Amino acid sequence: MIVKRVLKQDASLDLMFQALSDPARRGMIERLCKGPATVSELAAPLPMSLPAVVQHLKLLESSGLVRSAKSGRVRTCRIELAALDRAEQWLSERRSTWEGRLDRLGDYLAKER
Amino acid sequence: MIVKRVLKQDASLDLMFQALSDPARRGMIERLCKGPATVSELAAPLPMSLPAVVQHLKLLESSGLVRSAKSGRVRTCRIELAALDRAEQWLSERRSTWEGRLDRLGDYLAKER
Repeated sequence: MIVKRVLKQDASLDLMFQALSDPARRGMIERLCKGPATVSELAAPLPMSLPAVVQHLKLLESSGLVRSAKSGRVRTCRIELAALDRAEQWLSERRSTWEGRLDRLGDYLAKER
Repeated sequence: MIVKRVLKQDASLDLMFQALSDPARRGMIERLCKGPATVSELAAPLPMSLPAVVQHLKLLESSGLVRSAKSGRVRTCRIELAALDRAEQWLSERRSTWEGRLDRLGDYLAKER
């Protein structure tokens, strides 16, 4: 019987990459990397309704990439850089694995000469 | 009238981040970063049917992260590192924007003292 390896569950990476798979949400993240913004400020340049923007924001918040706080009637959003770093780290780890493989292949070929 | 900025369309980033949002697909990418693998080799550790694996592979190929070639009856898959780099680059550009903002804030505060 072949023992199936359990998939590495990482729901937070699932949600983060899902959050990043939409151009409107990436646009909001680009904006928030320049500094905090209110929901209206985030919505202003986007070709969609405010409720649609709020839906995108909810997904960004549930992914951990953005957090927001309400003061009076104004909700201000901020980027959560640590979350963005985690997604970047996953990708850079993959590249390291790949580069390590190339290095080993190079060593092997050098020995074989 | 407020002129709505057109969203930066980047369908390849959409597809890439979507491809990365699933643990089985991330598992396949992790495996392929260690070297090329046949479809059977990719499927072996995964707790799912071969057709399900093939579906995931199709999405990975359409995102540009993986390419495959058939030789006889065996299909071998390889990682497309340039695509992985693009996703990483998008994230690192966001971090640079953020860090640039912190630097400017630091300069401003230093001047104000």
